[in-house]
Amino acid sequence: MTIKRRQFIKTAGIGSLAGAAAGGVAMPAIAQSAPEVRWRMTSSFPKSLDTIYGAAEMFSRVVAELTDNRFQVQPFAGGEIVPALQALDAVQNGTVEAAHTAMYYYWGKDPTFAFGTAVPFGMNSRMEDAWMYYGGGIDLFNEFLKDYNVYGLPGGNTGCQMGGWFRKEIKTVADLNGLKFRVGGFAGTVLQKLGVVPQVIAGGDIYPALEKGTIDAAEWVGPYDDEKLGFNKVAPIYHYPGWWEGGAMLHFTFGIEKFNALPKAYQAAVRTAAMAANKDMQAKYDAVNPPALKRLISAGAQLKPFSQEVMAACSKAANEVYAETSAKNAKF
Amino acid sequence: MTIKRRQFIKTAGIGSLAGAAAGGVAMPAIAQSAPEVRWRMTSSFPKSLDTIYGAAEMFSRVVAELTDNRFQVQPFAGGEIVPALQALDAVQNGTVEAAHTAMYYYWGKDPTFAFGTAVPFGMNSRMEDAWMYYGGGIDLFNEFLKDYNVYGLPGGNTGCQMGGWFRKEIKTVADLNGLKFRVGGFAGTVLQKLGVVPQVIAGGDIYPALEKGTIDAAEWVGPYDDEKLGFNKVAPIYHYPGWWEGGAMLHFTFGIEKFNALPKAYQAAVRTAAMAANKDMQAKYDAVNPPALKRLISAGAQLKPFSQEVMAACSKAANEVYAETSAKNAKF
Repeated sequence: MTIKRRQFIKTAGIGSLAGAAAGGVAMPAIAQSAPEVRWRMTSSFPKSLDTIYGAAEMFSRVVAELTDNRFQVQPFAGGEIVPALQALDAVQNGTVEAAHTAMYYYWGKDPTFAFGTAVPFGMNSRMEDAWMYYGGGIDLFNEFLKDYNVYGLPGGNTGCQMGGWFRKEIKTVADLNGLKFRVGGFAGTVLQKLGVVPQVIAGGDIYPALEKGTIDAAEWVGPYDDEKLGFNKVAPIYHYPGWWEGGAMLHFTFGIEKFNALPKAYQAAVRTAAMAANKDMQAKYDAVNPPALKRLISAGAQLKPFSQEVMAACSKAANEVYAETSAKNAKF
Repeated sequence: MTIKRRQFIKTAGIGSLAGAAAGGVAMPAIAQSAPEVRWRMTSSFPKSLDTIYGAAEMFSRVVAELTDNRFQVQPFAGGEIVPALQALDAVQNGTVEAAHTAMYYYWGKDPTFAFGTAVPFGMNSRMEDAWMYYGGGIDLFNEFLKDYNVYGLPGGNTGCQMGGWFRKEIKTVADLNGLKFRVGGFAGTVLQKLGVVPQVIAGGDIYPALEKGTIDAAEWVGPYDDEKLGFNKVAPIYHYPGWWEGGAMLHFTFGIEKFNALPKAYQAAVRTAAMAANKDMQAKYDAVNPPALKRLISAGAQLKPFSQEVMAACSKAANEVYAETSAKNAKF
C-alpha cells in the first residue's frame, strides 16, 4: 500500500504531499485518485483588504471542502513568505505552487500583463468575464502566461474603482499638470502625457504623504477599502470614476506542471473554486461599497465626477499609449 | 463490502444510488464518503434556450468532474419528464431530486417567490448577487422555501432583459391602454393598472400571434434569445429596458432531505457548481447579446427606449402593487 502511494507520488510528480491517506486500510483505485496534497498560495494582498485577501481564503476553504480536506491550499498574506509584488515570480520559479495576484503588477516585464487585470478605458467586470469565459480570454491569456510557466484563472474583481482622493478639485486638464498622484502602473504612463507625476507609495504610507502634502492625490481601491485608511480627513475631494480600472480582475495562478500533475477531480476543484471566488468577490464589494460611500460622505468626503474635458483628454492619452505600445510589442 | 455500502445507503437515506463504487477492491473510509449517487434535474427551459438550459448542463458536468463521476445529475429539458412550470412541485413532492427554474413562475402560490428572480424596478444581476451572497438573501429565501420542502441556490442570470417587440411604438401612457401584451407574472399585474391586457402565450406560439395581430406586443428575453424567434419581422419596434426584469435570476433547487443526506463533499460540489454556473450564465449572455442586437438592428429592428413618462407611470404602478401585496402578505 505504502509503495503504491509512493509510486503515485512519483508518477504524478506532485510537489507537496503530506500525511497518510486513510487510517490503516487498504487503498483501492479511488484513493489513488484522491491523494493528500498540500499547496501554498501566496497573496499579493494584506489581510486588512479582507475582500481581496478573502478570495484566497475562500478558494482554499472550497477546495478543501470539495476534496474532503485531502487537497489543502494554505493562503499567505503578501510579504509573509513572498514579497507582495513577486507573487508571480514565486510561482514561476516553483517557490510556491500558487498565487493570488493582480496581473498588471507585472506590466514592467511586459505591458501585455495589464490585460489580465484592467486597462484604462477598458472593460467593466461583466465584460471581462464575458471575454474570459466566452470570448477566448482564458485561453489567449494562458498562451501568453505559458512563457512564465504559469497557468492563470480569473479570481475576483473589485468592480469599477474610484478615481481617488484629491486635496484640490480637478476641474480642467491644466489642473493635472505637475500633480503628484499616487497611482500605479499603466494609468501612470497615460497620466504622464498630461503632466501628472505618478508616485509609487505603499498603502500604509499614503496617509502621511497626503497629510503633509508630499503628494497631492492618491488612488487606492474604492469606498470600502479607502475608508479604512481615512483619506477623507486629509484629501476631501473624492473623484470618480477610476477610468483606469473599470473592473480590476484578480487571478489565481498555478505552476503549469503542478496543475497538470493534479488528479482530474482536483483540477476541477481548482477551476470551479476559482470561478466561485470570482463571483464571490464582486458580490462582496457590491454589498459593502455603497454603505461605505454613504459613511464617507457623512464624514465630509466631497464626491465629484471627473469633468467631460478631463475624461476626454485622458481617453485620448490612453489611445496614444496603446498605439505606441502596440507598435513595439506584438503580443500587446 | 457490499453490505457496508448498503448500510451507508440506508444511513444516509439517499434516494437514487446506482452502480458499484470501485471495481472489486476493498472499500475504506474514503469510499464510504464518496458513494455513487444519481439524481435527475428537471429544467423549466427548452434546449433551444442554450444559455439558460446550458446552466443545468454545466452544473451537471461540473458536479461529475468534482466527484470523479461518482455523483451524476442528469438534466432534462422542460416537458421531458416534468411540465416546464411544475419543476418546483416535482422537487417538492420528490418526483425528482433537483430542478433548474425561475422562482417567479410560482408567484401564483405566493408572490414572495418573485424575489427569487426579479421584481419590477428591482435589482440588477450584480445587486442580486450582493444581496444573495452577502446580504443574507440565500438564508432569507430558504427560510421561505422551507415550507415547500426545497433548498435553493442562485443558478444563473440573464441580466437586464429587453422591453419586448411592439407592432407600434409606445410613446405615451395612453398607448398602453388596451394593449394586448404577452408578458408574464408580476409585470402583468403592474401593467394592468395602466390598461394593458396581459397575455399568457408559450414561446413557440408568440410569432404567429404577433403576425396576425392577435396580440400587439410580446416580451421574451433579450437579443440573443429573441433573435431565434424572429420577432423583428412582425413587430419591428424593440423597446427597452425590461424594467420588470432588471436581472432575472435562475435557481437550482433541491429536495431538502435529499440535499442534507449528501456527503459533505457532495454538498460542497452542489454549492460550488451552482455558484460557478451563476457566474457562467451571465458571462455567456454578456458575450452573445451585443452581437445579436447588432444583427437585429441590421435586420430592421428599431431600438427605442420607453419614454420617461411611461417609465414613471410604470414605476408608480409597481409601487402601488407592492403596497397592496404587502398589506395582504407578511412574507412579501
